[in-house]
Amino acid sequence: MTTGFKSTDWKNLNFAIVGLGLIGGSFAKALRRLHVRSIIGIDIDDNVLTAAKNQGIIDVPLKVAGEEIRQADVVICALYPEAVIKFVKDSIGFLKEGVLLTDVSGIKKNLPFEVQLLLRPGMEFISGHPMAGRQGSGLDMSDGTIFQGANYIVIPEKHNSEEVIKWLETLAMALGCKHTTRISPEEHDSIIAYTSNLPHIAAVALIDSDSFSEKTKYFIAGSFRDGTRVADINEELWSSLFLANKDRVADEVDKYMEQLQLWSIALRAGDIDSLKDFMRKAATRRKELY
Amino acid sequence: MTTGFKSTDWKNLNFAIVGLGLIGGSFAKALRRLHVRSIIGIDIDDNVLTAAKNQGIIDVPLKVAGEEIRQADVVICALYPEAVIKFVKDSIGFLKEGVLLTDVSGIKKNLPFEVQLLLRPGMEFISGHPMAGRQGSGLDMSDGTIFQGANYIVIPEKHNSEEVIKWLETLAMALGCKHTTRISPEEHDSIIAYTSNLPHIAAVALIDSDSFSEKTKYFIAGSFRDGTRVADINEELWSSLFLANKDRVADEVDKYMEQLQLWSIALRAGDIDSLKDFMRKAATRRKELY
Repeated sequence: MTTGFKSTDWKNLNFAIVGLGLIGGSFAKALRRLHVRSIIGIDIDDNVLTAAKNQGIIDVPLKVAGEEIRQADVVICALYPEAVIKFVKDSIGFLKEGVLLTDVSGIKKNLPFEVQLLLRPGMEFISGHPMAGRQGSGLDMSDGTIFQGANYIVIPEKHNSEEVIKWLETLAMALGCKHTTRISPEEHDSIIAYTSNLPHIAAVALIDSDSFSEKTKYFIAGSFRDGTRVADINEELWSSLFLANKDRVADEVDKYMEQLQLWSIALRAGDIDSLKDFMRKAATRRKELY
Repeated sequence: MTTGFKSTDWKNLNFAIVGLGLIGGSFAKALRRLHVRSIIGIDIDDNVLTAAKNQGIIDVPLKVAGEEIRQADVVICALYPEAVIKFVKDSIGFLKEGVLLTDVSGIKKNLPFEVQLLLRPGMEFISGHPMAGRQGSGLDMSDGTIFQGANYIVIPEKHNSEEVIKWLETLAMALGCKHTTRISPEEHDSIIAYTSNLPHIAAVALIDSDSFSEKTKYFIAGSFRDGTRVADINEELWSSLFLANKDRVADEVDKYMEQLQLWSIALRAGDIDSLKDFMRKAATRRKELY
């Protein structure tokens, strides 16, 4: 094959990015720094396409899959999980032989497997995503530096060649990531339920408490600010992510409540030794992480 | 009275700061910027006293209450609640007539009332604290800018004169605060249980979850980092604060669990409408706060 998708000669590669939201826009901006040959931007919103083109983030704006994406050596799907499948179905007739597809979905389930089934021989889909993000949503909030220092998760399936797995890892490092991790889709969703889904729910529940009042704003400092930072949440995206992983997420919420129940009991009992044990364990873990 | 403690002519006032930890050190640094006449620093740790003196944060280092504090027009007790009482008992014989005392305890209970009972006529204790803080503890972590833009809580008791209440509010604004709030000790402790105590417990419980593993570090991004920022906690200080307010804090933990229980149920039921309702409420509240 001479399709070149395994090349890491970025200057000779044409990329297509589907979905110019926070993550898609960030990919486009970071790829610009790699001086890739061209970036095709695909989005259903005309205003977003126009903005991305005017800001020089993309070269070719495209509203629906069409002949133009035959140029793409690599297609990055920065869409909700269910939209990835639809996009691949709609565009399969236009994709070049040997195209490499990847996604950035926060929850994987059967997605990598299902997408690969739709592809023709020579085409390969590999799943991954950066452990990065920031508040807000949309192209305006995108930032090419979100990859800097982040970990990139690569989720290979049986159909993936070692060459393609390594290619994605090389791209991640080129974008600025400092580490890559390979993991199965099942383990991915299980870990993410704790490390990403749960913290969002913890923040939302904290600010949703019945104790919130008009006076709250005068009595908050860093702990409340940090603990509720992600409570300004994109409900469409996150309800999709939570439900795609709902049993694992519910299990994590229940495990979190087990810890809180220990606190409630120890507080009412005035059990200072237990409180200190909880805090010592937490402080040790936090120091080791950062 | 000509004791001058109600003066806001900072250049002519002598301050004593008891406890040169994170908050005491921050007060000393911020008072320096007001060019107060002198700062007496009192701490049980010789190393801390030497460091504070060498760094120019204090003028007079003092290990125990003694004749030197008769100079002080204002005494700021930056100690654990129980230590405030002990300090006042030990130092009462050395304090000048007309001295003004204040504290920065995060939990108030009967403290303002009990301290005032120990004082001689002409002396006044007024309770308050900045809604500010930062990670870590100790003089090394202190920062004179923590008052910038913060709210200062003033907790007057019946014994407090309007003049002294206003004096503390004026000092807070001079230190850089943007707002002051007057509140009773009971309401203070009740609100703080939600806005400060609970976020610390939420962070500790999040990182203490049984789901934490060796792999966690590769799968965390902003939401986990922010949600556990205060989990690196000073167990001595916080066990004291939690227990001083334990029933209210336990009630807040229980209310928090009620919200989380709603999440657990809605997730298992695949109830997307409820999930969106929770998130919409949270996002609205968060946007209004910041």
